Amino acid sequence: MDRLTSWERRTSVALLLVGIAFLLGWAIPVLVPGLPAPVRQAFWYLQVLTWVLFTADYLVRLVLAPRRLRFVLRNLPSLAVVVLPLLRPLWLLRALLLLHVIAERVRLPLRLRAVVYVSGTAIFLAVIGSIAVLDVERHNPDGNITTIGDALWWSLTTMTTVGYGDRFPITSEGRLVAAGLMLAGIALLGVVTAAIASWFVERFERSVAMERRTEEELANVATELAELRKTVAELTARLET
Amino acid sequence: MDRLTSWERRTSVALLLVGIAFLLGWAIPVLVPGLPAPVRQAFWYLQVLTWVLFTADYLVRLVLAPRRLRFVLRNLPSLAVVVLPLLRPLWLLRALLLLHVIAERVRLPLRLRAVVYVSGTAIFLAVIGSIAVLDVERHNPDGNITTIGDALWWSLTTMTTVGYGDRFPITSEGRLVAAGLMLAGIALLGVVTAAIASWFVERFERSVAMERRTEEELANVATELAELRKTVAELTARLET
Amino acid sequence: MDRLTSWERRTSVALLLVGIAFLLGWAIPVLVPGLPAPVRQAFWYLQVLTWVLFTADYLVRLVLAPRRLRFVLRNLPSLAVVVLPLLRPLWLLRALLLLHVIAERVRLPLRLRAVVYVSGTAIFLAVIGSIAVLDVERHNPDGNITTIGDALWWSLTTMTTVGYGDRFPITSEGRLVAAGLMLAGIALLGVVTAAIASWFVERFERSVAMERRTEEELANVATELAELRKTVAELTARLET
Amino acid sequence: MDRLTSWERRTSVALLLVGIAFLLGWAIPVLVPGLPAPVRQAFWYLQVLTWVLFTADYLVRLVLAPRRLRFVLRNLPSLAVVVLPLLRPLWLLRALLLLHVIAERVRLPLRLRAVVYVSGTAIFLAVIGSIAVLDVERHNPDGNITTIGDALWWSLTTMTTVGYGDRFPITSEGRLVAAGLMLAGIALLGVVTAAIASWFVERFERSVAMERRTEEELANVATELAELRKTVAELTARLET
Repeated sequence: MDRLTSWERRTSVALLLVGIAFLLGWAIPVLVPGLPAPVRQAFWYLQVLTWVLFTADYLVRLVLAPRRLRFVLRNLPSLAVVVLPLLRPLWLLRALLLLHVIAERVRLPLRLRAVVYVSGTAIFLAVIGSIAVLDVERHNPDGNITTIGDALWWSLTTMTTVGYGDRFPITSEGRLVAAGLMLAGIALLGVVTAAIASWFVERFERSVAMERRTEEELANVATELAELRKTVAELTARLET
Repeated sequence: MDRLTSWERRTSVALLLVGIAFLLGWAIPVLVPGLPAPVRQAFWYLQVLTWVLFTADYLVRLVLAPRRLRFVLRNLPSLAVVVLPLLRPLWLLRALLLLHVIAERVRLPLRLRAVVYVSGTAIFLAVIGSIAVLDVERHNPDGNITTIGDALWWSLTTMTTVGYGDRFPITSEGRLVAAGLMLAGIALLGVVTAAIASWFVERFERSVAMERRTEEELANVATELAELRKTVAELTARLET
Repeated sequence: MDRLTSWERRTSVALLLVGIAFLLGWAIPVLVPGLPAPVRQAFWYLQVLTWVLFTADYLVRLVLAPRRLRFVLRNLPSLAVVVLPLLRPLWLLRALLLLHVIAERVRLPLRLRAVVYVSGTAIFLAVIGSIAVLDVERHNPDGNITTIGDALWWSLTTMTTVGYGDRFPITSEGRLVAAGLMLAGIALLGVVTAAIASWFVERFERSVAMERRTEEELANVATELAELRKTVAELTARLET
Repeated sequence: MDRLTSWERRTSVALLLVGIAFLLGWAIPVLVPGLPAPVRQAFWYLQVLTWVLFTADYLVRLVLAPRRLRFVLRNLPSLAVVVLPLLRPLWLLRALLLLHVIAERVRLPLRLRAVVYVSGTAIFLAVIGSIAVLDVERHNPDGNITTIGDALWWSLTTMTTVGYGDRFPITSEGRLVAAGLMLAGIALLGVVTAAIASWFVERFERSVAMERRTEEELANVATELAELRKTVAELTARLET
């Protein structure tokens, strides 16, 4: 095990906690608009602190990496998260990776695991996306998403591709978030459909396999009987001579 | 058979009737707004009575259960239905369980059974959801779902994920109902697609299996012919000596 | 062949022509609103005439049927078409049955045939549905579908479940037509997805089958070689004695 | 290789460049509305020039074709592109064919290749469709798609079938473009779902195949053991005589 992997293992729980701290520092001021200025300031410092920690982690990993260019190319999402403020909530996706590790241990069947995993990601994205959209849309005078209830409702109608159009983002940032939710919704729909379809196919295959096995066993019995009859005939023939 | 199972079997038809009584006591005042006060009162007492009966049934089952904590954990939906008024129409889902029992006896192929079952649930949810949404939206001055026709039309556009946006719920309760309908609609779409896909796959597999069987039979005939030829050659050889 | 089947075969082309006559008598006055009164009257008589012919056909088939109650129960759609004016355009579905017969002869693979068939039905339903919705919505003062262009555009957004909501039916008849189009759209989406999925599965199965066949052939060659070696060894042994 | 194929191979890169020139000459004046008149004129001449080149290419191919009627019938899309101005951006689809050739060489698994290919086509169509819709909608006084941002957002909500209805085309040309995007969106959804479904099925088949192989190997070992025992018994019998 090289030093990079060892560092990543040792810091994984700490980074998850930093991620949750970031989420709180980002979400609470959005969800509770009337906070007094000093509290708002404190949350802002918390966000800056988590950004410093994530950036430090990225730099340490870059230094520890055996081949640096390859590290940068393979970890472009991490770089994007460090550089682009809008993508920062995606840090929390690490929490989903943890969910993945748990799912691996529980040994659910592949299909169910995929559905659980995608559903978890979808719910997580819906909540994060609602907060993000609320953050960028609320201060726009023409915006129609002004409460967290509206934002969650909008997320739901977007991910299910229902799209009533009573609530929709009008800023570029809000539309980018919407794009992510739409694609996640389509992926979720695809996984659910695929899981049901493959379940049907499996059930059918199993019944066919069972049928075939029965047929083969019958054939074997028939062969054995034929051989037995032949042996008996030979014995009779010998006794007659 | 323990006492809990025996109780559940004996009360299943009675509970279905109580469920239908609840549905009538709940739906008729919603669907017929101009009822005189005493009739409206009577329907209200009917609803209270069904609630008492369902709660009594839950308590009896709790007492009869061999392990009570496990019973509570395994029957969280029943508890939710007893405690939360909004979920009460779900009592009617027992009627769907009855449908399930019938479907099992009719011995439809798995795929068709799934489609029938999910379609039945979808239609049931659409009707129940329409009444529920009408109930919570009609008295809201900004609401746009004011007749049962509007409500059914809204259900349809929601479950098929068309979502024109000419009708949509604006209250929190209405949006919760909408969430249920959207997810049910996606599940229905998934099952229909999956059923068609697995039907295509089966048809293909059958034709491949038939091909393979023909090939195997030809191979068997060839082997038998070869053996026959060999035997004839041996006999010829013996006769020549 | 009984007399009923013989009658149905002999009248099938005639009925298709009557169906097309009905379609023209129904669609042209809808599509060309400014027709002079006598022409409009003529088209109305044409519609009445086709209705008389279809009803006569139904009665003849009823009389020829060996078991009449069974005939009525098995031909409920025909009865509905005779009794309900709104369903009358469905007479044209016979034309689709003709398409089915052609598809059978062309011997397309199952999957492609299903896609062609469902696409054909979808296009047909979209056109018929557009005309039907235009017919019932145009004379409603609050309606927003007033030209055939609007109606076709609305059909498209409905069947693909996009549902912008710039055009939508507001009458009960229009909403019934919309329900049919939505369900047809979902079915079409399901068939397309299923066809692609089963194609992927088949391609995979074929490659697995090919692999297995190669393995089996290799095993056969190995067995034959082993037997050959054994025979050679035996011959050597004999020569040595 | 006949002369037609040879011509097509030699001109493929040149035609791609002409296609890109056409795209620039068409898209830049749409995306940058305030261009001075002479620049706008220049772009117009560029478009005319590319049209002349494409038409010349079509005529050369027609002359070189061994059977001309068959060439026209098999290349109806090319003819449509030459004759209909609205379809002209489809010239760029040649670029996608290039993508196809690359994908073939990279030897991705079938499923992944299909997803990459359809995603590429979808992104390409979304961008082209946005520019086309902006071009036809911007100058309509009732239109609501007036910037490229609106147009891209509209493409996204259309292809994912979300369809909020805050932006939608109102001209016939815009609606035709919308129809193409909707169908492409449905195809994309179908391919994604199908790819996931077939992946589930494959994973299951592989595990079944592995199971079966283990079973067969166990059976082989058992057979060999039985034969060994028999041989030992025979040897013992011989030694006893």
